[in-house]
Amino acid sequence: MKNNTPDILVMNGVNLDLLGQRQPDIYGSFSLSDLESLLMKESTALATACGLMGVNLSFYQSNAEAEFIEKLTKVKVDGVLINPAAWTHTSLALADRLAAMPTPYVEVHISNLAVREDYRQKSYSAPHALGVVYGFGLDSYLVGLTGLLRHLGNASG
Amino acid sequence: MKNNTPDILVMNGVNLDLLGQRQPDIYGSFSLSDLESLLMKESTALATACGLMGVNLSFYQSNAEAEFIEKLTKVKVDGVLINPAAWTHTSLALADRLAAMPTPYVEVHISNLAVREDYRQKSYSAPHALGVVYGFGLDSYLVGLTGLLRHLGNASG
Amino acid sequence: MKNNTPDILVMNGVNLDLLGQRQPDIYGSFSLSDLESLLMKESTALATACGLMGVNLSFYQSNAEAEFIEKLTKVKVDGVLINPAAWTHTSLALADRLAAMPTPYVEVHISNLAVREDYRQKSYSAPHALGVVYGFGLDSYLVGLTGLLRHLGNASG
Amino acid sequence: MKNNTPDILVMNGVNLDLLGQRQPDIYGSFSLSDLESLLMKESTALATACGLMGVNLSFYQSNAEAEFIEKLTKVKVDGVLINPAAWTHTSLALADRLAAMPTPYVEVHISNLAVREDYRQKSYSAPHALGVVYGFGLDSYLVGLTGLLRHLGNASG
Amino acid sequence: MKNNTPDILVMNGVNLDLLGQRQPDIYGSFSLSDLESLLMKESTALATACGLMGVNLSFYQSNAEAEFIEKLTKVKVDGVLINPAAWTHTSLALADRLAAMPTPYVEVHISNLAVREDYRQKSYSAPHALGVVYGFGLDSYLVGLTGLLRHLGNASG
Amino acid sequence: MKNNTPDILVMNGVNLDLLGQRQPDIYGSFSLSDLESLLMKESTALATACGLMGVNLSFYQSNAEAEFIEKLTKVKVDGVLINPAAWTHTSLALADRLAAMPTPYVEVHISNLAVREDYRQKSYSAPHALGVVYGFGLDSYLVGLTGLLRHLGNASG
Amino acid sequence: MKNNTPDILVMNGVNLDLLGQRQPDIYGSFSLSDLESLLMKESTALATACGLMGVNLSFYQSNAEAEFIEKLTKVKVDGVLINPAAWTHTSLALADRLAAMPTPYVEVHISNLAVREDYRQKSYSAPHALGVVYGFGLDSYLVGLTGLLRHLGNASG
Amino acid sequence: MKNNTPDILVMNGVNLDLLGQRQPDIYGSFSLSDLESLLMKESTALATACGLMGVNLSFYQSNAEAEFIEKLTKVKVDGVLINPAAWTHTSLALADRLAAMPTPYVEVHISNLAVREDYRQKSYSAPHALGVVYGFGLDSYLVGLTGLLRHLGNASG
Amino acid sequence: MKNNTPDILVMNGVNLDLLGQRQPDIYGSFSLSDLESLLMKESTALATACGLMGVNLSFYQSNAEAEFIEKLTKVKVDGVLINPAAWTHTSLALADRLAAMPTPYVEVHISNLAVREDYRQKSYSAPHALGVVYGFGLDSYLVGLTGLLRHLGNASG
Amino acid sequence: MKNNTPDILVMNGVNLDLLGQRQPDIYGSFSLSDLESLLMKESTALATACGLMGVNLSFYQSNAEAEFIEKLTKVKVDGVLINPAAWTHTSLALADRLAAMPTPYVEVHISNLAVREDYRQKSYSAPHALGVVYGFGLDSYLVGLTGLLRHLGNASG
Amino acid sequence: MKNNTPDILVMNGVNLDLLGQRQPDIYGSFSLSDLESLLMKESTALATACGLMGVNLSFYQSNAEAEFIEKLTKVKVDGVLINPAAWTHTSLALADRLAAMPTPYVEVHISNLAVREDYRQKSYSAPHALGVVYGFGLDSYLVGLTGLLRHLGNASG
Amino acid sequence: MKNNTPDILVMNGVNLDLLGQRQPDIYGSFSLSDLESLLMKESTALATACGLMGVNLSFYQSNAEAEFIEKLTKVKVDGVLINPAAWTHTSLALADRLAAMPTPYVEVHISNLAVREDYRQKSYSAPHALGVVYGFGLDSYLVGLTGLLRHLGNASG
Repeated sequence: MKNNTPDILVMNGVNLDLLGQRQPDIYGSFSLSDLESLLMKESTALATACGLMGVNLSFYQSNAEAEFIEKLTKVKVDGVLINPAAWTHTSLALADRLAAMPTPYVEVHISNLAVREDYRQKSYSAPHALGVVYGFGLDSYLVGLTGLLRHLGNASG
Repeated sequence: MKNNTPDILVMNGVNLDLLGQRQPDIYGSFSLSDLESLLMKESTALATACGLMGVNLSFYQSNAEAEFIEKLTKVKVDGVLINPAAWTHTSLALADRLAAMPTPYVEVHISNLAVREDYRQKSYSAPHALGVVYGFGLDSYLVGLTGLLRHLGNASG
Repeated sequence: MKNNTPDILVMNGVNLDLLGQRQPDIYGSFSLSDLESLLMKESTALATACGLMGVNLSFYQSNAEAEFIEKLTKVKVDGVLINPAAWTHTSLALADRLAAMPTPYVEVHISNLAVREDYRQKSYSAPHALGVVYGFGLDSYLVGLTGLLRHLGNASG
Repeated sequence: MKNNTPDILVMNGVNLDLLGQRQPDIYGSFSLSDLESLLMKESTALATACGLMGVNLSFYQSNAEAEFIEKLTKVKVDGVLINPAAWTHTSLALADRLAAMPTPYVEVHISNLAVREDYRQKSYSAPHALGVVYGFGLDSYLVGLTGLLRHLGNASG
Repeated sequence: MKNNTPDILVMNGVNLDLLGQRQPDIYGSFSLSDLESLLMKESTALATACGLMGVNLSFYQSNAEAEFIEKLTKVKVDGVLINPAAWTHTSLALADRLAAMPTPYVEVHISNLAVREDYRQKSYSAPHALGVVYGFGLDSYLVGLTGLLRHLGNASG
Repeated sequence: MKNNTPDILVMNGVNLDLLGQRQPDIYGSFSLSDLESLLMKESTALATACGLMGVNLSFYQSNAEAEFIEKLTKVKVDGVLINPAAWTHTSLALADRLAAMPTPYVEVHISNLAVREDYRQKSYSAPHALGVVYGFGLDSYLVGLTGLLRHLGNASG
Repeated sequence: MKNNTPDILVMNGVNLDLLGQRQPDIYGSFSLSDLESLLMKESTALATACGLMGVNLSFYQSNAEAEFIEKLTKVKVDGVLINPAAWTHTSLALADRLAAMPTPYVEVHISNLAVREDYRQKSYSAPHALGVVYGFGLDSYLVGLTGLLRHLGNASG
Repeated sequence: MKNNTPDILVMNGVNLDLLGQRQPDIYGSFSLSDLESLLMKESTALATACGLMGVNLSFYQSNAEAEFIEKLTKVKVDGVLINPAAWTHTSLALADRLAAMPTPYVEVHISNLAVREDYRQKSYSAPHALGVVYGFGLDSYLVGLTGLLRHLGNASG
Repeated sequence: MKNNTPDILVMNGVNLDLLGQRQPDIYGSFSLSDLESLLMKESTALATACGLMGVNLSFYQSNAEAEFIEKLTKVKVDGVLINPAAWTHTSLALADRLAAMPTPYVEVHISNLAVREDYRQKSYSAPHALGVVYGFGLDSYLVGLTGLLRHLGNASG
Repeated sequence: MKNNTPDILVMNGVNLDLLGQRQPDIYGSFSLSDLESLLMKESTALATACGLMGVNLSFYQSNAEAEFIEKLTKVKVDGVLINPAAWTHTSLALADRLAAMPTPYVEVHISNLAVREDYRQKSYSAPHALGVVYGFGLDSYLVGLTGLLRHLGNASG
Repeated sequence: MKNNTPDILVMNGVNLDLLGQRQPDIYGSFSLSDLESLLMKESTALATACGLMGVNLSFYQSNAEAEFIEKLTKVKVDGVLINPAAWTHTSLALADRLAAMPTPYVEVHISNLAVREDYRQKSYSAPHALGVVYGFGLDSYLVGLTGLLRHLGNASG
Repeated sequence: MKNNTPDILVMNGVNLDLLGQRQPDIYGSFSLSDLESLLMKESTALATACGLMGVNLSFYQSNAEAEFIEKLTKVKVDGVLINPAAWTHTSLALADRLAAMPTPYVEVHISNLAVREDYRQKSYSAPHALGVVYGFGLDSYLVGLTGLLRHLGNASG
């Protein structure tokens, strides 16, 4: 981490390219680029509140599981903020990859999983996460980012 | 909410009076008063980062379910940050009370529930929460507070 | 039973102090005192229809399980009309106490349990009840009271 | 409803023609005609207690599911008091028919279902009933009738 | 442990105040004070047989879970002999407290749990106990006490 | 029972010939003969504490289920202290034989079954036992013996 | 039973009118009248072997469950040999009727149920039967008849 | 099969040496030798009724599973009548051996398995049997023998 | 099949006489005769599109399971288009009859079963059908008919 | 839809490139191009029978889930005929995408799923489909197409 | 291990004495002595390929579980190649013994367990094995032996 | 197979590119190229031991399921040695492809699956494999290769 300013990769999994068009009653009407703007706009203040100089965010979205999995090994960052979407509940391959990755990651979900379908109640990736956040809408990303920044702030302190 | 400074009640359920003494490998060595100090110390910065003037925190812990339940109706605050501990998984009574409460609440847990016992995988109270946060250690409270403050900041904005 | 006029205790369990405020789409907009008024107003006619001189009703509500359980032993009445609310589905302690009580009791629920959540489908206390009534709204109490009065009327006849 | 005196059809399902002969430890020694006499004798008092002028009862029993189902559509009454017996737990066809019927019905059972076999714990027809009553012996019919009369009395009031 | 004479707290949970009145076919006709007398009368001989000078017994019963839980932290004894009754099977809160307690405890039950209902087959508290004893009637307490005294006798030896 | 001194057969089932060699973290480092010495050494004091003159112990171990089963019928003793080991969880044949035996028996296990594998949570033989004891290490035998001697002492008293 | 010659009703349930045409790999190529001839031809010898003078067989088949159920009450015989076919596994109504019938009955099946579909593994009617026979092809009827005749022969002896 | 007189081995499994002493409410008060006498006395008549000249019965009982299993391969008979007792539900080894044996066998049980414990509802050996008979008491052997003799009579005819 | 014009029987099961009156949000507002008109009107075009000269449709509806089952054997047609309604999920008797019938049949349902109750997810009759169609509303019949006509057209080609 | 001639995309999922080579006993010996020829050849007649001028078919097959999912968003058609093959039962990602798509789709399967493995009994995509068709072999596509064309014909009518 | 030539015991469990006679479609037509010849013939080459001088094989088969279990402790070898047959799935006693044995063992099965009955899907002994091999027919022994020899070769290297 | 030297493709599925870096306590510290070297080094000796001239190995690894699946059809080899990794337990698509492939394949796993998580206990691909090997670490590949070479050696013999 250079200059007390961590690099964070925000990874959005399958179908999140449709954010804002797909089931707006569940996922809201914000698009993926709205999400990215929100994170850019609010993240510096949160980083400061966590005792850091700032934060460098980068963004990645893919519907192809193999590329998504390999991205985790290729990119060198200080932390990962990940919304695995449907893969949360079906991809053992992604979960195995995350378990093998030394970088800390926080798992976030837009909707409140506790009121969704049965098959969305189990997460393969949660056991290895630093922490898990769900239900706050787009704010879940900011809330999860706070957890990641607190962790990096403590570690760097 | 007066002066753009919300009142938040932090509620800790059964056995959390033992924080720091009980299973430190899972819950860490911080005591309940350490938690309260941490929240007092860090909350203003987070509130500012969420577009608020500040935040007034009050704290409550009880091992008596009936008093805990009635506390929810008696106290008038703008938001509740709650760790129901063991009651999360066994008390339908608490969950019913929370569902009946108009005040928004965020559910937090210190440990990563996803790696705990089977009987800790189900939460009666999560379905009605604004959002859920777990696994960040004591930071779960700060992370969850961020979610609550974002919500109140947006509402008051 | 004095003068062919039985003493009946109407016991309301956890969260029923909120009746009328909590989930009115399920529980209606009547308060606990409305319920008590209704029972006072209609019970004499029903008692007469069951061959009794009248009925003396008393009322009790608590959110504290221990007090609720001990109430069952302390009070001497001819019958109990009980709505254990959330405890119906979680409290083996209450069910054990009811099973040990010689006084006949009728279990009532305001809502139609058959259309509620899975965890409300099982009652620990039903097996020892004289009878069970659910789904009639506030009338469930009057309907259940009729069953209790019929039983006492036959026994006293 | 003519003259504030509702017409009620009391429907008894499969095997209830054997009432009094079959498993008297569970169902008692009263016959189906004893049940009908009891209902005739006690129903007027209950109707009065529910604010009605009286009640016209008619009775029907069949072991043939198709006739039983069609009876529900043919007869025009103000309410149905139904004991579907074994069909409660096995006949989706009957439940579908009841769900399609605009007339309110109350489901009753003589025995305390909560202490019977597992396959008697689920009722297909309960979700659409006005209310459900069980465990009072023959009195279950009077108790259930009270619920139906209360409903009709309120509606006509 | 002073003078090789350990202090033992005998804790009886919910509904055991009714011992002797409740389901005597299962729990026998002895009362709670009969149990205490039996333990007072027989414990010295057992302590001697376990190589100790004697034993100081104290007794506690409560139907209030919160008080019961807090008792475990307040009292300073050398061992606990506990019958959690219905809480054995439903109270994760009690089990969490016992797991956090450094004092050794033995779990006892009067009846043979193996022939009781399904929901009494699982114990939340057994995993952390020194040992478990059930089925001997009131003697379960003496049998469990022997296990506790053996353990303390070995430790003190 | 001659001279108020009961004959007790201590039966050890399959693989207990390996005691001390097999999984010492679970079963400890004592051998079967150490167990027998311990029982011989401590049993008289316990018998006296239970109001008996003494106790005659005999020992039997076998890995052959058929011989083990037939032993139960051949030997005439006043009580059996039995550790069926793996057969506890798989042998319906042994459980049937024990159920058919008029002699009282106590079932003991060295380890705390509640923290073992799922398939060790169910005992075929427990339902017919006088009582069950587990988790005290080798002391489980002494603790279980106390229960048996108490029973015989009461019966002979 | 007149002249030591019992009257036996052989009842064949739903679809057995198709015997010989339906799935001959499972049910064989014999028709219902072949079955009746076989029973007529062989039953006297079996009755004699069971110490009776002879046996009067009558036959009944129906695809209408209600008629089948009512037949059980109408006909006065000394024993019933019944193959409930598909109703074995689905009709709680038939099972309730059989449980209410004082006449002894034997349940038979042509095929070996143990190798059929899962939903044919459970029989509602078996618990109340004198005995159950399956797997012998048409001979299952003769084998089951032997059981019924032995029972009647013993009773009449 | 010599002279149209088949050799039948009657095999009784574990614990059946105790017949008449063990749970007489379930298994009756007849001993194993009573059973053998009954079979000797009644079998010729049944053989004749099945179109055979007679039948040669031999008997075997063992509590040792290995010997029991090997007996099946050593003895050369025309049919086996087998009551595997507790092994029915636990011994895959016996079932595998029976499946490998070309000799036809009939499985019999004294009691009505359908009203016994859950773990007695599944038979490993039934799928390969010629047929299965249960519930007739000792007569189950005669009834099962009839099925075996019918089969051999047809084959020899 | 005469003149390349197959005879098709359209069979509607229990409660479909209520089509248009029962739960119109699920089943639509068309009546059974509307369905028959639609089929009459559209079937010739579909038959032509499937390479046939035409099609002769006949219709049958019953709430009596026995008559419905026997209809399958009595009528001689080239194919059956069947909506077994609630019997789909409960009638093993109907499924056995269909399995025994050489005539090809197509199973249709008006509603999308995949969004209905759990107990509507399993079909006893589907395994033997030529094909299954659901979810198209009344068009399900036309869609299913196309499948049947394609099959007959190919066979006759 | 131009000129009353809808554009339909026929989508074949994973492994369907092997059609004709893979398990021909289940899927037949037709190849994917045979399927496309069949659809081209027969679709106009069906369209006409559904009141349309014609139909424009396009075809797509992929073994890559990501491309398959994105195809759904890229292509603009009036309806989709989809066979998701193995993904039907495992891909929550595909189901989420289909649920988000406004274009109506019909789900088809070549084989009769009701006789396949357990893990092929559940479809993630069926709940959002216009309708579902299975079991007709290649004709399932024509049958499903009929359902889609009927829907579009009605909408355009 | 002397001279770099390990001693290996090949243990065959219950019913494998029937190899070649029992279900040849599953187990092939080779006998147990054919298996032993194959192993003798091929093992030296495999040992050499694994960097060893050779291998000494000995063979043991038993249908008696107790003898089989005790054999494991008596014989001193460098490795065990074991096919527990039916005991794999039912004998906790054998599994406990294997877990207690310091000698490495490899578990082999002739058939592909993944296509056998449900009750053959679980192995009690696999968790403690060096490795598991199944499905290669008799070659499973050679394949498993290779794994054992590789392990011993590495250890001795 | 040319010159008695088969071509074998060794296929490694998702995440095995990380071998040596990921969870070394489970998978060891060897990399994928170490594995390939080991196989190259040891395979000739094993081939000779299996009666072949030699073996040509080629290697393939991919994290992209679609490419992996299509590879199976494109490459022409005599046998496949496959470690499907996480796809073993989640990919019905891969299993369907393997079932459709005429080339024999052996499934191998590095770790002992029997001690891993529940969701790794079921393999979709095992039922169609020639054989399955797990638990030997990297040696699992050599052990599985032996099985494949034995099979090809026999076939070519």
